[in-house]
Amino acid sequence: MLRTMAAIGIGTALNACDSSSAAPARPLPPPPPGRLVSPRPGDWPANVGNGKSVVVLGAGIAGMTSALEMTRLGYNCTILEATAVPGGRNRTIRAGDVLTETDSQQTCMFDFDNELYFNAGPARISHHHEFLLGYCREFGIALETFTNDNRAALLHSTSSFGGQPIIARHVRADSRGNIARLLAMAVNQNALDLELSATDKTNVLEMMRQLGDLDSNFDYAGSSRAGFPGQENTGSRQRGELLNPLQLQDLISETFWQQRQVFSEGLNQQPTMLQPVGGMDRIARAFETQVAADLITEAQVTEIRKIANGTRVVYRDRFGTITSLDADTCVCTIPATVLRNIPNDFSAAHQAEISSFLYSTAGRIAFQSRRFWEQDHNIYGGISWTTQDITQIWYPNSGFGQNNGILVGAYIFGGPAAANFANLSPQQRIDTAIGEGVNIHPELSAEATHGFSVFWPKVPFQLGAWGTSSPATLLTGDDNIYFAGEHLSILQGWQEGAILSAYHAIDLIVARDTLT
Amino acid sequence: MLRTMAAIGIGTALNACDSSSAAPARPLPPPPPGRLVSPRPGDWPANVGNGKSVVVLGAGIAGMTSALEMTRLGYNCTILEATAVPGGRNRTIRAGDVLTETDSQQTCMFDFDNELYFNAGPARISHHHEFLLGYCREFGIALETFTNDNRAALLHSTSSFGGQPIIARHVRADSRGNIARLLAMAVNQNALDLELSATDKTNVLEMMRQLGDLDSNFDYAGSSRAGFPGQENTGSRQRGELLNPLQLQDLISETFWQQRQVFSEGLNQQPTMLQPVGGMDRIARAFETQVAADLITEAQVTEIRKIANGTRVVYRDRFGTITSLDADTCVCTIPATVLRNIPNDFSAAHQAEISSFLYSTAGRIAFQSRRFWEQDHNIYGGISWTTQDITQIWYPNSGFGQNNGILVGAYIFGGPAAANFANLSPQQRIDTAIGEGVNIHPELSAEATHGFSVFWPKVPFQLGAWGTSSPATLLTGDDNIYFAGEHLSILQGWQEGAILSAYHAIDLIVARDTLT
Repeated sequence: MLRTMAAIGIGTALNACDSSSAAPARPLPPPPPGRLVSPRPGDWPANVGNGKSVVVLGAGIAGMTSALEMTRLGYNCTILEATAVPGGRNRTIRAGDVLTETDSQQTCMFDFDNELYFNAGPARISHHHEFLLGYCREFGIALETFTNDNRAALLHSTSSFGGQPIIARHVRADSRGNIARLLAMAVNQNALDLELSATDKTNVLEMMRQLGDLDSNFDYAGSSRAGFPGQENTGSRQRGELLNPLQLQDLISETFWQQRQVFSEGLNQQPTMLQPVGGMDRIARAFETQVAADLITEAQVTEIRKIANGTRVVYRDRFGTITSLDADTCVCTIPATVLRNIPNDFSAAHQAEISSFLYSTAGRIAFQSRRFWEQDHNIYGGISWTTQDITQIWYPNSGFGQNNGILVGAYIFGGPAAANFANLSPQQRIDTAIGEGVNIHPELSAEATHGFSVFWPKVPFQLGAWGTSSPATLLTGDDNIYFAGEHLSILQGWQEGAILSAYHAIDLIVARDTLT
Repeated sequence: MLRTMAAIGIGTALNACDSSSAAPARPLPPPPPGRLVSPRPGDWPANVGNGKSVVVLGAGIAGMTSALEMTRLGYNCTILEATAVPGGRNRTIRAGDVLTETDSQQTCMFDFDNELYFNAGPARISHHHEFLLGYCREFGIALETFTNDNRAALLHSTSSFGGQPIIARHVRADSRGNIARLLAMAVNQNALDLELSATDKTNVLEMMRQLGDLDSNFDYAGSSRAGFPGQENTGSRQRGELLNPLQLQDLISETFWQQRQVFSEGLNQQPTMLQPVGGMDRIARAFETQVAADLITEAQVTEIRKIANGTRVVYRDRFGTITSLDADTCVCTIPATVLRNIPNDFSAAHQAEISSFLYSTAGRIAFQSRRFWEQDHNIYGGISWTTQDITQIWYPNSGFGQNNGILVGAYIFGGPAAANFANLSPQQRIDTAIGEGVNIHPELSAEATHGFSVFWPKVPFQLGAWGTSSPATLLTGDDNIYFAGEHLSILQGWQEGAILSAYHAIDLIVARDTLT
């Protein structure tokens, strides 16, 4: 069990799901050897639970994973979920859905259609998130490709290129062209002769010629890779005329442009990712089916207590009745932002970490619209980026060719902009998002309808988007209480992180129960 | 009509669909201004056809596009198709399909399942292939993402890295790391001071830090972007330990590694592309529905003649009956490889170009298998590359999570390898493909079943994969005979090219009929 403690809590900032593309200042330091293998279900002895009772607090991915796997180990689990619908931040918005935030309520007015939805929380799965993908396979959840880097999408800075959005492939081609040109120039000036042999130089030059689409003088004069003038409007009609290359000075002037080159190079943010067909909540519904017999919804936890050889959880059920539930063990997946306000018997150290645990602010605003991005701009899925507060525009990754789709007109995370948006009314959020969005897609002013927003800091029982502090004490049990949730993992903000955190909690419990 | 002649025939090598990633030695030269706008249907006067008769030879994409659009212009069209199933090289292979090549016959033994298919001809659509995408929208063809660049797929050279396949993200991260390191070194040595101002240097250095995931000394010591040791087997279990970086000398030693960096940078070969849900032949079937009333299948053309004010086509129908069909106009989309053997009255210049027109050799070999690539290696769609003759392995881009899938175990194009494979028997092709494929995926030896191959040079009425010569005379009419087909377009080998070629032929005919 040496490995369990170290499995969690390393590299959190690097791996968080905030779509940040900033490269870390340093690669991760090498870890202590042999200490970073996270647990997986097959590691635990069969029937170790032996009928012991567990109360799991919260039916998000971490809670339902905990209950599912512990039930398989012979534990007798009960899940208390505060809301009517399990899934936590795994939430997909469709026609008729009602969202109550702490200071507003919205009803989703999208048309009824299988493709007219958006994922308000987790919305993409990395290919190496193997435990989540394993559950998808086990539960028969159909997956499809999520395009995270569409070269046909747009990059927009209010302070570059006259505020005109540029097609990503144009930025990419000219950035590579300039980088290749500069490195080739240095090689040809023999500036790197201490590093490169004559053969190396020949090979690097050829690599640069290919990388940058350079001419025979290793100069860059534009590339067909960028597309053709007006192509976003005229498609295949005009070929042969090259776009004027964007100038190096413009491409390096803002970190925005630099970062857009590397966003999808991160291990978790891949150019192509995965999503469940029909909405991310297919995963929540499948987990729910697995644990349905042990699930109590609309059960709001009001106290978490320690008792002799166990725990006591007090909750208010949907009828207002207060119930006290004793169990040998508690697995608490309630977000720290919520947990800190529930009376409890936690140790001072645990309480302190819960009280100070930081969460990211994030939210999305979505619209129903004619798929003008496909029909008029050849954009099929993916993300456009802007320096404006709305940060990102997401195009639907399925239903291509249908007339209408749901556009995520803003995905705002971290920083003051997200907090500011969260504090706006739903209508103000919509107005602001449209006001900025038209600088990228003027069509939005006339065609974006039925705006709907979800800002996680305002969603009851979540009160935050994802944890950003580095967990320490919460990775240890507190008598018979153990903690889980994405915030306690190396993949904060990812569903895979929620699963890893559940495995970590189970590992601690199994270790305890194996020793006794 | 000045534009029509110049619309076609430029940049063929650059745009061909052979998956070649070699960058062109030069960007395209600027074209004569105003001459490169290709025609589109809305350009032609309504009812210009006025009941004139047209015989279209070949019901591939070019032929069916010609018939569809000319019918809409008031022409009275008849399509003669040699085979029983329209579509030409747009062909999807499923359980029970029979393929007769010139020297073999195969029956597809895949299990019956909507996802167990492969596209033997065109298999991906670029986002800017707007005419093809427009027809998909018009015909209601559902599209989904085709992953053309999956960083989880493998790159394999028999002569590098001990012949071990490397995960693409590893190659990518370390290549970028080394490029960024070298350029930063040159900048820091002031080698580019004639090019870069002090501000530029600061910005380029920051760009390199991000691009390469460099440390604070602008050195590269590996990156989490590459993944973690053994991750293809252990997924999320191990985090924190970095992979040893691949050495620059190895990454530049072969053009294979250089080219793998830029394959999906081409304008047509994008990282994410599109495919019809259920198989590329959804497009052929939709076109077929449009032109069904004018379509005669199993009609083999035996003569193409000029007659006074028109053309005469002689064909043999399915019953062996020889029929002579006179029409005002002929649009001939028969591949040059086939056409050169049909008796005709073409001009000497047209005949000469038909006789000498070169075609690429290409073919695919597919297998049914457990989706070990998903289940054991986290590969969801995309392409692995090898220096071996099989060249590429394609993973299915849909049906993720199902137990079985169709793997394209070889996609071989151009060069002697493709010709050699074409000359093998179906079983020899399978054996050779497995023999090479196991160097990338050892699972193939035990799990690849029901091998099925299509090599276009051996397919009757095609006798080639796609045209590679630059067309000239064939872009002009020959009395009342006009030519179309992908080989006569700026997008040789692409369905969009077939459509563009049809538009070009129609443009010539409409011009003639507008003038008379």
